[in-house]
Amino acid sequence: MEAQPVGQWLDELASKASTPGGGAGAAMNAAVGAALVSMVCNLTIGKPKYAEHEATMTEALAKAEDLRARALGLAADDAAAFDAVVAAYKLPKATDEEKQARTAAIQAALVGAAEVPLRTAALAAEVIDVAASILDGANTNVISDIAVAASSAKSALESGVVNVEVNLASMADEQLRKETETRLTEFTPAAGRADALIAQVRERLAR
Amino acid sequence: MEAQPVGQWLDELASKASTPGGGAGAAMNAAVGAALVSMVCNLTIGKPKYAEHEATMTEALAKAEDLRARALGLAADDAAAFDAVVAAYKLPKATDEEKQARTAAIQAALVGAAEVPLRTAALAAEVIDVAASILDGANTNVISDIAVAASSAKSALESGVVNVEVNLASMADEQLRKETETRLTEFTPAAGRADALIAQVRERLAR
Repeated sequence: MEAQPVGQWLDELASKASTPGGGAGAAMNAAVGAALVSMVCNLTIGKPKYAEHEATMTEALAKAEDLRARALGLAADDAAAFDAVVAAYKLPKATDEEKQARTAAIQAALVGAAEVPLRTAALAAEVIDVAASILDGANTNVISDIAVAASSAKSALESGVVNVEVNLASMADEQLRKETETRLTEFTPAAGRADALIAQVRERLAR
Repeated sequence: MEAQPVGQWLDELASKASTPGGGAGAAMNAAVGAALVSMVCNLTIGKPKYAEHEATMTEALAKAEDLRARALGLAADDAAAFDAVVAAYKLPKATDEEKQARTAAIQAALVGAAEVPLRTAALAAEVIDVAASILDGANTNVISDIAVAASSAKSALESGVVNVEVNLASMADEQLRKETETRLTEFTPAAGRADALIAQVRERLAR
């Protein structure tokens, strides 16, 4: 994905090919959010006016760079996990043994497929928190970009949640389903933190 | 932007270069939303099970393709509008005449710079509405992608609003500022429609 032209990647996203799909779209939104956090840090670090925030900005930059790289990795993982589900559905089902093996393979693949959007939601929450961490020390000329970063990451989180839910719907193991739902609730409150951050930015812009 | 590798575009977004910035990020989120609407249409059109929705899907696909192309155009327009603002600020200001000319040029450039995120917000609202138009007729295997599309477009809308506001803050012409604010309120209710659409998708997934 990194090496692919933007227009071509969007063409593939739009096509009937099963990957890239919504999981990759969510990962891209997280990557855009992380990149904008990096931009704000890069436009703040080294400016005498913001010298007292240098350590915060340097730390946030390192974190945002890592998050962006991981977001791109998630887009690839999403495609691999989806392919595994498709492959499992294609397993033979002529005999009872084959049927059992296929069902087990499908369920294992679905667990893997739910894991990727769960990680996307977790990563998106981290992008939101790193965006929040730079508001007070950021170059005031670019604080609107903190809001865009938060909004983009919030969309990645929201999409991650939906993408987990679509996999949960086919998951047979009740216990595992409950566990996944519980893990998801760790990350969902970050959407509210993103809204609060966006509101803070807008308030400062209106001053 | 279309021809640029995804990784490189994100690197530039993250860099201290003034463009691409938050405006391009918002446009990308709108493009991802439009691309996912196309994907859902492409995975529905031609399937006998959804034959009765063929006309709706074909119309939505054409609209989504157009919106995606326009979103990519907005990313370019945003960079051009920003460059115009920077160029205006760099105009000479030695004499009173130069000062007047510079101030007028800055204000004209700011109007242009506010116009692009306004168009991004308008386009994002269109993406949300076309996503809503396909829910009932879409291939049920991919309705989660409608939610991701709506979420991504909602982020583009939200970011467009913030990016208009940041330009309004520097705009001297009170009348024009009021007009721009009023035009913005035409599009902001689409965020609520996106939330409603996402909720509908989640409800269907939970069945």
